[in-house]
Amino acid sequence: MNNPSLDQLETPALLLDEARMQHNIDRMRSRLARFRVGFRPHVKTNKCIEVTRRLTADAAGPITVSTLHEADYFTARGVTDILYAVGIAPNKLDHVTKLRRQGVKLSVILDSAEAARMVAAHGRANGETFDVLIEIDTDRHRAGVPPEAPELIAIGRELNGDGATLMGVMTHAGKSYDCKSADEIRAMAEQERAGVVTAALRLREAGLPCPVVSVGSTPTALYAENLDGVTEVRAGVYVFFDLVMAGLGVCRTDEIALSVMATVIGQQVEKGWTIVDAGWMAMSRDRGTARQAVDQGYGLVCDLRGRPLDGLIVIDANQEHGIVAARPGAAPATPLPVGTQVRILPNHACATAAQFGEYQVLAPGNVLRETWQRLNGW
Amino acid sequence: MNNPSLDQLETPALLLDEARMQHNIDRMRSRLARFRVGFRPHVKTNKCIEVTRRLTADAAGPITVSTLHEADYFTARGVTDILYAVGIAPNKLDHVTKLRRQGVKLSVILDSAEAARMVAAHGRANGETFDVLIEIDTDRHRAGVPPEAPELIAIGRELNGDGATLMGVMTHAGKSYDCKSADEIRAMAEQERAGVVTAALRLREAGLPCPVVSVGSTPTALYAENLDGVTEVRAGVYVFFDLVMAGLGVCRTDEIALSVMATVIGQQVEKGWTIVDAGWMAMSRDRGTARQAVDQGYGLVCDLRGRPLDGLIVIDANQEHGIVAARPGAAPATPLPVGTQVRILPNHACATAAQFGEYQVLAPGNVLRETWQRLNGW
Repeated sequence: MNNPSLDQLETPALLLDEARMQHNIDRMRSRLARFRVGFRPHVKTNKCIEVTRRLTADAAGPITVSTLHEADYFTARGVTDILYAVGIAPNKLDHVTKLRRQGVKLSVILDSAEAARMVAAHGRANGETFDVLIEIDTDRHRAGVPPEAPELIAIGRELNGDGATLMGVMTHAGKSYDCKSADEIRAMAEQERAGVVTAALRLREAGLPCPVVSVGSTPTALYAENLDGVTEVRAGVYVFFDLVMAGLGVCRTDEIALSVMATVIGQQVEKGWTIVDAGWMAMSRDRGTARQAVDQGYGLVCDLRGRPLDGLIVIDANQEHGIVAARPGAAPATPLPVGTQVRILPNHACATAAQFGEYQVLAPGNVLRETWQRLNGW
Repeated sequence: MNNPSLDQLETPALLLDEARMQHNIDRMRSRLARFRVGFRPHVKTNKCIEVTRRLTADAAGPITVSTLHEADYFTARGVTDILYAVGIAPNKLDHVTKLRRQGVKLSVILDSAEAARMVAAHGRANGETFDVLIEIDTDRHRAGVPPEAPELIAIGRELNGDGATLMGVMTHAGKSYDCKSADEIRAMAEQERAGVVTAALRLREAGLPCPVVSVGSTPTALYAENLDGVTEVRAGVYVFFDLVMAGLGVCRTDEIALSVMATVIGQQVEKGWTIVDAGWMAMSRDRGTARQAVDQGYGLVCDLRGRPLDGLIVIDANQEHGIVAARPGAAPATPLPVGTQVRILPNHACATAAQFGEYQVLAPGNVLRETWQRLNGW
C-alpha cells in the first residue's frame, strides 16, 4: 500500500524528519568519538526500536531506560544490555529478576543504604544477584548521594556481598537544562564528571569495586571537554532535539526532528487568533521554554515544509485546541485560513512524543515513508 | 486469576475508586433531573467503555467526544449517537463519512461560513449530508461565533442546503474553570445559557432550523439554576473530579476518584524531600492549580487508603521522578521511608488519565477489582 501524502494525514499527527534525526545522531557520535568512553543512549525520548537501532553499533545495546516497560519492550527486540536509570523500588525487583533470567544484563540504581539492604536481601532470598550502580548527586537537583557523603561507602558495603554486585556509579546533571551559556554547560559537564569520578575514587580507596563510571545529559555530552575517569556517557533527547534545547543553544530550530502536524479549524479575527486541532493533548502540557529567554508558548509554528512562520507560536491550549497567534507584545497576526496545515515544534521532545502512539516518518522532500510504533505507559 | 493486592502493584499505576466515581455520577444525574434537558456526557476524560456505560441510561448514548479515534472506539462498542465537539477540519470529513455510513448519528461542529461551505461542498461531492452544529462563543475564551455576530446567520444559511443539515447550536463556557466563587460559576452558567439561546433565537428568526441547543462544562452543569431554552447539557470531568475542580469549590478532595499510586525510591533528608517514582510522565505536566488560591504542585499526596498526608505535595517533577515535600513556606517534612507507597491526587483528571493505558479499579476496602483499558491518541 502506498503511504498517504503528507497533506492527507488526519491531524494531529507526530512527524519525524528522518534526515534531521540522522544528522543529530551523527553529531553525537562524532562528538563522543574524541573521548575513550562508551555510549549508552537513553531511549526514554524515543521508546521505539526503529529509532534505537540507529543509536548503537550493536543491536544488543547498551541502552538506558526510564521504565521496566521499556526494558520489556527492548528485551523482546534483542537488546541485552540495559541500565534502568530510575531509583529501584522494592515492588519492581521481581520484574527485574524475571528480565535478568531471560538473559538480559539489566542494572539498577539506588542512592541509600536502606535501598541497598532491601535489594541485597531480595537477591539473597530469591537466589538472584542484582547488578547495582550507586546514583551520585552532582548538581543537587534531584536524587543521588553527594560524592563526598560518608553514606556512599556504607551503600557500597551493602552491595558487596551476596544478593547484589556493586557495578559502579552514575550521575545525571539535570541542572544542565537550566544553563544560560555554553560556558555554563561546559562548567556543568566538568562538575558532573568531577563529582562522579570523586565518588568512584572514594569507593575504590575503601576497597570496593567500581568498574562503571557513567555520566550524561544531552547538553553535557555535547559540551564536555574532558571525560577523564568516565567509562560511559548517556544522552537521549539529542536524537530529536526540541525548543528547550534550542533555547539553551545546544541545537538550532532547524535541527529539531520532531513536530506535530495540525490543521486550522477556525479563527478569531479581531484577536488575531488561529485555532488549530493540536492542543495540549498533542503538544503535552510542557512549557519548558517559559523559563528561558524566548518563551515559545506550547510550540513554534512552521509551514508544512518545516519553515517557521513569522513569529507565530501556540499561545494557549486546551485539550484538543491550540490557539496560534503572534508572541505577546508583537503586532497581531492575520489568522491562517481554515484548512491550512502547519507543523509545530515542541518544547520538550520526551513529553510531546509520549502523547502519541506512533511516528510518521518523513523522508527528504517531506514524503511520508513509513509509520513507526512507539511505546508508552508502564 | 486473583487480582493482586494493592501494595503488590508495580508503580506508577492509575487507581480509580469506583465508589467515589459512582457518587459523582449520581450527583450529576440528580442535579440535572431538576431540569427538562437531555444529557450528553463528554467522554474525553475517561475514554473507557466501562466508565461511559455508567453515564447514560442507554448504552447507545448520546455521548460527546474530543477525537474521531474516540468516535471509532465507542462506535465499535455500540454507541450510536455521538457529537464530535472540536471544530471539524476538511481532512477529517472522509472519516466522519465512514462512521456515519456505519449507522452512527455523528454530528460535527464549526464556527465560520468558510468551514460551513467546505463541509456542505464535501457532502454534496460525496453523496453525504452532514449533521452540523454551530459553535457559539459565550465567554471569549477560545472558539465559536459570538451570539450576536452577523456571521451566525450566514453560517446557518450555508448549512441549510444539500450536503449539510443545520442541527442547532452548542457552546462550552471554558472560562468557568477560572471562576473564584460559586456565585461566579452561577453567573457563568447563565451567561453560557443566555448566549447560546440568543443564537438559537436569531437562527430561528432568520427562518433556519435549530432543534438542538447544547451547553456544558462540569462547573456550569453543577451550578446552573436556569436552563430555559437549552435542550442538552454536556460535562465530562465530573466523573472523576480533580484538584482544579476542588480548588474551584465544585467538589471536595475526598470526592476525587482518580489517583496515581507511587513508591518512595529515595530521600534528600536535609532538604525534606521524598523522591517517588511518579514524575510528570505519570502526573502529566498539568499545573492547573498554579493559578488557584492553593497551588497543589504536581499533586496532593495521600496514604494508600486515600487520606491526605499532612501538607505533602509533589513540588517538582522530572520524567519519572516526583519530588514530594511540604508546601513552599511550610516547615520541612520528615521524608517518607524508601518503599512507602502513596496515592497522588492529580491537578487535572483528563491530562493525568491520558498518561496511562488502563485504570486499576478499586472496590470498597481498597481492593483491586479489575483493570479497565482506556483509549489514547488519535
